[in-house]
Formats: sequence, C-alpha cells, structure tokens
Amino acid sequence: MDTTSLLAARFGAEAAPDAADAALPEGLARLLDRRVSRRYRDQDVPEALLALVLAAAQSAPSKSDLQQYSVVVLRERAPIARIAGWIGTMDWIATAPVLLIWCGDMRRGQRLCARHAMEHANNNLDTFLNTAADCALAMGHAIAAAETLGLGTCPISYVRNHVEKIAPLLALPKGVYPLAGLTLGWPDGRRPTAMRLPPGVVVHRERYDDAAMEEAVAAYDRRRAAREPIAPGSVKNRDIYPARADIGWSENLARQLSVPERYGFAAWLRTRGFGLA
Amino acid sequence: MDTTSLLAARFGAEAAPDAADAALPEGLARLLDRRVSRRYRDQDVPEALLALVLAAAQSAPSKSDLQQYSVVVLRERAPIARIAGWIGTMDWIATAPVLLIWCGDMRRGQRLCARHAMEHANNNLDTFLNTAADCALAMGHAIAAAETLGLGTCPISYVRNHVEKIAPLLALPKGVYPLAGLTLGWPDGRRPTAMRLPPGVVVHRERYDDAAMEEAVAAYDRRRAAREPIAPGSVKNRDIYPARADIGWSENLARQLSVPERYGFAAWLRTRGFGLA
Repeated sequence: MDTTSLLAARFGAEAAPDAADAALPEGLARLLDRRVSRRYRDQDVPEALLALVLAAAQSAPSKSDLQQYSVVVLRERAPIARIAGWIGTMDWIATAPVLLIWCGDMRRGQRLCARHAMEHANNNLDTFLNTAADCALAMGHAIAAAETLGLGTCPISYVRNHVEKIAPLLALPKGVYPLAGLTLGWPDGRRPTAMRLPPGVVVHRERYDDAAMEEAVAAYDRRRAAREPIAPGSVKNRDIYPARADIGWSENLARQLSVPERYGFAAWLRTRGFGLA
Repeated sequence: MDTTSLLAARFGAEAAPDAADAALPEGLARLLDRRVSRRYRDQDVPEALLALVLAAAQSAPSKSDLQQYSVVVLRERAPIARIAGWIGTMDWIATAPVLLIWCGDMRRGQRLCARHAMEHANNNLDTFLNTAADCALAMGHAIAAAETLGLGTCPISYVRNHVEKIAPLLALPKGVYPLAGLTLGWPDGRRPTAMRLPPGVVVHRERYDDAAMEEAVAAYDRRRAAREPIAPGSVKNRDIYPARADIGWSENLARQLSVPERYGFAAWLRTRGFGLA
C-alpha cells in the first residue's frame, strides 16, 4: 500500500491531499486504511488479543490524566443478543464474538473525592464533555489497535437509543452512561474504504472559513455516488420522507438531521445523576 | 520493544494484563508506547507530514458518517503565542510549530439541511455528544498517526478555559466549539510512559462492578508514587489547599475535581447556538 493509493481511496484521487509518495510507516498505513467491519467469521477473539486492544485503549491520552471512562466487555451471547434485538436493524451485532460498551464515567471521580473527604464540585457539562472525550479517545485507540491485529470493529452509537434498558442490563450505576458500543471480531471480507469529505471542508487554515463548503460538498456527493451510491436500505427516514433513488451523502444527512434523534437523552442523563448546566 | 515491557511500562509489572509475549505489529507497539510530548525541537513539520496526520484523523470512524467536526491549523506564531499566553501555564504551546484546534461542528449539518430545504431538528445534547465523539476520535487518530511518524503531541483541553477569546480569534461561527488543542512537533526527548489505572478498574466483565476499585486505586497510587511522584508544580489547586509532599494520583484528582472548573462552559455554548436539552 502506498500513500497515493491510500489517500485516493479515502478522498478520491482528485480531492486527495498532496503528500509525498514515500514509504509509509506500517502503523500509519493501517490508520489510513481503516474500514468498518459489519460481518464476522465464526471465530473467537483470544483473551490475550482482547487484553492488547484494551491496553491500547488505556494508552490513549486522557484529560488531566483523570481517565474518566469505563468499558464493559460482553462475551456472553445472551446480553449481546438482547442488545442486538433492541437495536433491531444491525444484525451483525449478534454475530460478533465481543461487544464492548464504552462508557463515560463520572462516578469514579466522585467516589475518589469522597474517599479523600473532599466535595466533588464538577458535576457539570464540562465534566460530561471530558468523560465523552476520554471515552472516545480510548475507543479510537482500541479501534486502531484492533486494525493492526487484523481484527475488525464497528462503533454502535445506537446503544444510546436504548439507554433505559442497557444501563440496568449492564448494572451501570449513576454517573456512568454508554457513549457507544463497539463490535469486535475477525472480519469476513472487507468493506470498501469510506470516502471522506475533502480536507478543505474539515481542515481550516488559521481561521474557520466555510465559504466554499457547499460547492465542495456537492462535488463530494458526486464522487461518492460514482464510487458507491447510497444503498436503498441506507436512505434515512424512509418511513417519513419518500424514498428516492440517487440520494447523495448531503441529502441523506439532511434527511437524518431533520428528524429528532434521541431527544430524550439529556433527560435520561439527569435521572442518572448528571448535572448538565 | 516487546509486549511484556510495554505493558509493564503502562501498568506496572504487577498490574499489567496477561498477554502473550509475542512479536507485536509495529503499529500496535506504537499505540501502547504513546507518550505526551511537551518539549519540541526548533524544526518545522513539513506540510506533507501534516497532511498525512490530518488524513489519518479523517480516517477515524464518525457517527452515522456525518463527520461533525472541524480542525483549525495554526502555524502563524502570533495566534499560537496569544493562546499560549492566555493559558499561561503551558510554555511548550508557544514552542510547537503547529497547534491544531479540534472543534465540534454542528454548523455544517445545519447548513446542509438548509441547502436541501429541510429543517435541522437535532440541536440537542445528543448531537453535541456526537460532535464531541467525532472530534475526539479524529484527534485520537491524528495523535496515533503523529506517533508513527516520530512526531509528538500534547492535547490541551485548557483551550476551553478561554473560549470567549479563542472563538473570535479563529472566527469560529455559531455551532462550532473548541473541544481541545493539540500541539504538534518533533519531540525534544521523551517523557516516561504515563502509568494507567489497572485494567480491572477501567474494564468490567459483563456488568459494571467497582466493588474493588478503592483498593486497586490505592495500590495504583503507590505504584505511581514509586515510579514518578507527582512534582510539586503539578499538585492541583495549591492556591486553595495547602501544598504537601506525597500527594498521590487519587488525592490530586480529588483536589482538582473539588474545585469547579469551566463551570460557565454550558452557558457559553448556549450563546453560540447550542441547545443542550
């Protein structure tokens, strides 16, 4: 794998950033070549490999070294099948040998404050954000580590659609919430590389400037459609808006974001002890 | 570098998880060996390498493929020096050739909804969390990519202590907020590996269970103190609580979390158009 081909796969040849076609460190090639895995072979993930994936997760940076996250490892079939059933539309979840539930965790800090006879005075939105960032960084490093081992993953934010059932299933106490699930297993085939927005849309120089965004996204819509049109089953909210062929990435985004999703999440968090002011 | 030494550096030999001492993929060794870099050589980061780091960031997973984040690249000395000056306690920021400001971005989705004549109906806490997770995943992949290239990074959540100045400096529009800064440069020396909580504290099996947490953290406090005691300058809130020698990790955490930090962040976000209900 050379740099030029990896970047062309990620952005399309005409939108790929200019980077020397030099030999890549293997680890960087793996990052650039990351794919989601939604089909798994019927083969276990040994504990030693899982331990390495989780150790890589714990090697991620953490805000002020506070490590405000936890992860629940599910290997038993029954709870994985229940979660898959609640979600209903992601049949690969139940076939994954491991399902990791990544959780923001304010509770540990609260307990440690109490242990040192000090008041926890940071039950606020900033701490909530810190727990989310710590948790996402750890999950991201787990994903990257899995890729280096030939394992495949798929993040599942839809666990948040069922927090009121998943939290008791996993005995999550107050102060702990699921950010995302992550299926882990041996990939059965590889998906094409997910094509990303052109760097000029996401990366700003010195100042935020999105004056050219709409035009760049229109070109991105066309590039994606040319490579892999959105499958009929992936068109969002077909029960609300008429289904149509040739829905592009940005129109599908609008179809998704125009319908409120998980609008009760903040209310649920408050029942779990989170102050979000 | 072998697995056993890397895990012993990360967790301490007596707390390291059990993983076969097999040859590691180079990319995984890099992840397990990640260190923060707070001193940089006076040497530029070529654009091609920066492009690769940012391409790796864009290769991270993104919730529903929505890519709800942006990054502002700072190379000019003046804005970097201003941000370093505002923060005041992190002198390495001004010496870094590149400062990346990672931003959650709800605005792009709002504009694209408008472009498709649809209402954006997800200005809520769940979307805020999605932007944070997308952003942290991208930053995490940038950090991992930098490590493979021999570059060093340091995440700076303290940019959030100065949002009211940093947002206009970078022309951040409504719907965009800084999650963290990230210094990027060629490391001048390497710090020791940051020792992490024992896996049993962070990783739960089938159900969340922190019954043994306090005891495990006490042992962690001792292991950290034995390897690298907290420097007097790193003891938190010395202007509020008496300074003392032999403050352990968990007591320092309590000293930090017992004083409200960035408690105005939610109010600021609301002035920038975020609905957090």
